[in-house]
Amino acid sequence: MSRIVYVNGTYFAQEDAKVSVFDRGFVFGDGVYEVIPVLHGRIVERGHALERLNRSLGEIAMAWPCTQDEFCQVLEELRARNELQEGYVYLQVTRGVAERDFAFPAAGTPSSFVAWTAAKKLIDNPLAATGVKVVTVPDLRWKRRDIKSINLLAQCLAKQKAASAGAFEGWMTEDGVVTEGASSSAYIVKDGAIITRALSTSILPGIRRKVILQMAREHGIALVERPFTVAEALAADEAFLSSATTLVMPVVSIDGQSVAGGRPGPVAQRLRAMYVEMILQEAAH
Amino acid sequence: MSRIVYVNGTYFAQEDAKVSVFDRGFVFGDGVYEVIPVLHGRIVERGHALERLNRSLGEIAMAWPCTQDEFCQVLEELRARNELQEGYVYLQVTRGVAERDFAFPAAGTPSSFVAWTAAKKLIDNPLAATGVKVVTVPDLRWKRRDIKSINLLAQCLAKQKAASAGAFEGWMTEDGVVTEGASSSAYIVKDGAIITRALSTSILPGIRRKVILQMAREHGIALVERPFTVAEALAADEAFLSSATTLVMPVVSIDGQSVAGGRPGPVAQRLRAMYVEMILQEAAH
Repeated sequence: MSRIVYVNGTYFAQEDAKVSVFDRGFVFGDGVYEVIPVLHGRIVERGHALERLNRSLGEIAMAWPCTQDEFCQVLEELRARNELQEGYVYLQVTRGVAERDFAFPAAGTPSSFVAWTAAKKLIDNPLAATGVKVVTVPDLRWKRRDIKSINLLAQCLAKQKAASAGAFEGWMTEDGVVTEGASSSAYIVKDGAIITRALSTSILPGIRRKVILQMAREHGIALVERPFTVAEALAADEAFLSSATTLVMPVVSIDGQSVAGGRPGPVAQRLRAMYVEMILQEAAH
Repeated sequence: MSRIVYVNGTYFAQEDAKVSVFDRGFVFGDGVYEVIPVLHGRIVERGHALERLNRSLGEIAMAWPCTQDEFCQVLEELRARNELQEGYVYLQVTRGVAERDFAFPAAGTPSSFVAWTAAKKLIDNPLAATGVKVVTVPDLRWKRRDIKSINLLAQCLAKQKAASAGAFEGWMTEDGVVTEGASSSAYIVKDGAIITRALSTSILPGIRRKVILQMAREHGIALVERPFTVAEALAADEAFLSSATTLVMPVVSIDGQSVAGGRPGPVAQRLRAMYVEMILQEAAH
């Protein structure tokens, strides 16, 4: 591991990238994060990520660590120093270093800003050809899931349950319906219509979700924003998920039962192709 | 600030006490913690804290960072190096350092163990003479509040709301009843009986709560374990809270309305006196 990691103004070798044990990110999980795709050496969909980060910060009254211009310069400098061609930039902003006290620290306490990169094949991801398995797990999260916070223990437990069951993702369920994936948005397709839960405080406003729904509308693909049950998902024509690192990913099994005949379905494949084309275009400009 | 802080086997000056940005405590809030009182240079009620820590670790399948004997030696060494006479030891165990992935890291990845001390007057706390104010806030937490995890953003927001309102604590409410305080257990007294919510996944199993209820039983003080509403609390004869750092603390105002005539009530004062006597005895042995 020889990555360069950004920590509060300095670029470190990753083994030297450290934060104070008094950082509120470490003590309280008092922070928010984003994951932004990189393609052909270009950070793509950055505007969506910054918009969501700005919203997350605002919802918990946390200050930007620097101007948005400086913020973007750091991300680009980090990408360049790591010579990252394809993968993602991960970034995290926390409420800074202070004596441990639940209430916010004194005004003017600078927010912490940490970022690193990871190489990953986004386009030629072999999973896209086979599809992935998901299992359902109880949704244990807090009530403000619309904030992309680093309070992620419930998601870790969900993802570990999925991994233990040999699945790629955990679909979290609550009150009989699927809320979303542990780190992805969840969709089914029935009679040609995409079904996915409407935005609320119960789910994260996924960037891929936003773009996929926009693409669906533009291409005349029917779309229903409502919750769906596990039984509905099992009886669906297709299922798929989306996230910054999987883009659009067909789901071929739920709780061990095949969906869509156990093969990636045509709607998911079409959306993935459209999505890939769109971000390739963005990366080329 | 000249404290000595323990981080994974080494005692650092606090400004040098750092963890990797890849520590799962920093990235996911994937960790648990305890706060243990220190009195007359002695760590008190350590057994209760270790028992609860062991339960928290078990519930999220996290390994102890070392043997419990070694763990206790660290806490004592830390207290001694800081020459702490009265206050508390704070300790935190996280799922260690690994490439960011929600699922648990490879078996054998060592847990991180960080601890520090803080001086605080536990016995001669001036707030005990005046009592404290609380305000009610919505309980936004996750569904496993019985685990003392560092996913504490909801509690930070609750405590900040309280601080902004000039209150000492936020009493979190859900479905019309008080669950507990942001960092304390909540009680009212009516017609001589202590009323506090029964243990479940909805509240933290407070150590002070456990000891207070035991003292109440031993001293023939009536006790009802059930939720109470804010209206009930406002109409109660007394209210109080408990935690590692406040021990037993009278509540004299809820949402700006006086409780118990705005003065510490006799049951809260009696329980505090009994509690102080008990831990002073423990510290003396």
